[in-house]
Amino acid sequence: MSVLPTIAIVGATGAVGREALSILAERAHPSDRVLAFASERSSGRTIDYADGVLPVRTLTKGALCTADIAIFASSAEVSREYVPEAAASGVVCIDNSSAFRADPRARLVIPEVNGHELDRLPESRIFANPNCSTILLLVALEPLRRAFGIERVIVSTYQAVSGAGLAGMEELRSQARAYPDDPAPEPRVFPQSCLFNCFVHESPLDPLTGFNGEEQKIVSETGRIWGLDGPAPVVPTCVRVPVLRAHCESVFVRLEHAATLEEVRTMFASAPGLALDDGSDSVTPRRASGADDILIGHLRSAGPVGEPNREFAFWLSGDQLRKGAALNALQIAERVMAQPMSV
Amino acid sequence: MSVLPTIAIVGATGAVGREALSILAERAHPSDRVLAFASERSSGRTIDYADGVLPVRTLTKGALCTADIAIFASSAEVSREYVPEAAASGVVCIDNSSAFRADPRARLVIPEVNGHELDRLPESRIFANPNCSTILLLVALEPLRRAFGIERVIVSTYQAVSGAGLAGMEELRSQARAYPDDPAPEPRVFPQSCLFNCFVHESPLDPLTGFNGEEQKIVSETGRIWGLDGPAPVVPTCVRVPVLRAHCESVFVRLEHAATLEEVRTMFASAPGLALDDGSDSVTPRRASGADDILIGHLRSAGPVGEPNREFAFWLSGDQLRKGAALNALQIAERVMAQPMSV
Repeated sequence: MSVLPTIAIVGATGAVGREALSILAERAHPSDRVLAFASERSSGRTIDYADGVLPVRTLTKGALCTADIAIFASSAEVSREYVPEAAASGVVCIDNSSAFRADPRARLVIPEVNGHELDRLPESRIFANPNCSTILLLVALEPLRRAFGIERVIVSTYQAVSGAGLAGMEELRSQARAYPDDPAPEPRVFPQSCLFNCFVHESPLDPLTGFNGEEQKIVSETGRIWGLDGPAPVVPTCVRVPVLRAHCESVFVRLEHAATLEEVRTMFASAPGLALDDGSDSVTPRRASGADDILIGHLRSAGPVGEPNREFAFWLSGDQLRKGAALNALQIAERVMAQPMSV
Repeated sequence: MSVLPTIAIVGATGAVGREALSILAERAHPSDRVLAFASERSSGRTIDYADGVLPVRTLTKGALCTADIAIFASSAEVSREYVPEAAASGVVCIDNSSAFRADPRARLVIPEVNGHELDRLPESRIFANPNCSTILLLVALEPLRRAFGIERVIVSTYQAVSGAGLAGMEELRSQARAYPDDPAPEPRVFPQSCLFNCFVHESPLDPLTGFNGEEQKIVSETGRIWGLDGPAPVVPTCVRVPVLRAHCESVFVRLEHAATLEEVRTMFASAPGLALDDGSDSVTPRRASGADDILIGHLRSAGPVGEPNREFAFWLSGDQLRKGAALNALQIAERVMAQPMSV
């Protein structure tokens, strides 16, 4: 495209919105081609962008019509209210909430995994960004899925509080600042104190299956992204840990076809979006924070040593505000913009 | 027994030693029947016990001979040096280090799992306490193993810094106290900053298999405790999280025989040493700290809903200084003392 698109960020003052602005600024997207939207509460404020600032606009009906692309990084309610109208008026919408992830009109896309879904615009003009834990897991598994097929995945997550946005991060920070005067601070954002604690993810439990919302998302979104008829053969356990930013996952995978450890290592080392680091203590959320790549470490065969086999375990860490959210959305935007704009 | 035994605690000033003293005091074990030993550094100090104090004795050759039972809660080096001599002189030794866990002369025991090993004193008079992560996992799995058999276990741990003793706890505490002035403190005890971070367990990696020492312990100790010919069918991933005390584990188990979710729930609810709590957000290391029971929550079937099946997932938290170490050792001591003392 000869003219750069105008990109609107809805929820620009939130954790994912700020990250999207930061990535656009890194890519030198001109500030007159960026529109920052937030709720009425932020009306009249400005927000940093590159070397300057952007006005924070209030989201109202029709406000997005001058944008080519709108990235929604707000609540599912806001997305449900504004995405259909914006998309109908011609704006390509990329929604980071869960509002459209199961909607057959929208495309649920991780460019490294089902990037072919970006070859043509869907009639709806709506793309959904998968859940952050799903994105990290599926980008990591993709080279193995392509080469050997995947029969089963058992995954346990170590999720940062930033999954609950800036308020989640501030809750953990304030608990650390209050230590040791208040060793058991009252939680507000989360059901439990975060400092020196961990707990099963706070999303509601499905009374039928007992899995929480975060776990259900991983199973159903993976099924959709992998193009399966039903839920994916993944058993997730989602847990919050007192980490500010970047999620970790402990992954056990059973392949359909046997591989050697060396083959798996080579796949990880050459796959897009991944950085293999075999030193086991160097893959941490502190190191993954701010990185585009998902770090993979502690790779080992869970079967007989030195023989091809089907079971492997590894550890990953990825910045869920970047690849788990803002970066994935902008990668979708870039790929869509590189295509002819016909539906 | 009519006369209460004299119990020596070796490493009485450490995290596990202090916990052992605290449990003995809770059980009103008379202070003239408790001997506290530590390294020469602590010579001349006293340590709190019940409403009074105990002198801290320096461990020297022959110093343990007046004890009936010695609980070693120090390093593997100290155990290797002092356990054989003490045991040869008639003292029943219960070693919390890894020194004798693989030694065929010693008995590796979790009373709830292989308590029959306590029916007779081994000729060596040496008992080994398993690794803390192993104890928590196997006490939780035991009711399922007895009723349905276990084919495979995939476990990811969320381990507190107290696994590295008081120095580990102090490192995390000091990092919290230094926050926010020093947001990225230099680690000393651990290879990584603990605050707002998590990392694969710091024990050395086996260059052949890639599993770290903690993971290898779980596999080999489980094999021994379950009476298998080789390593157990367990795939562990061991991870440190910024929690002061009490470990958590995310457990996936494949049974040999199908069970209903209700059957599994009933087993957990009635098994010794376990407390089933089905609310998923209430099983946390903060709640498990100081408790004798291992808390079990977030139990669900990983197979078809409502049908008997072989795959289940659950979450547990247990105080690794108590049931994972000091309490298990004292339970061994109590069971041994209840038997006739002949070898």
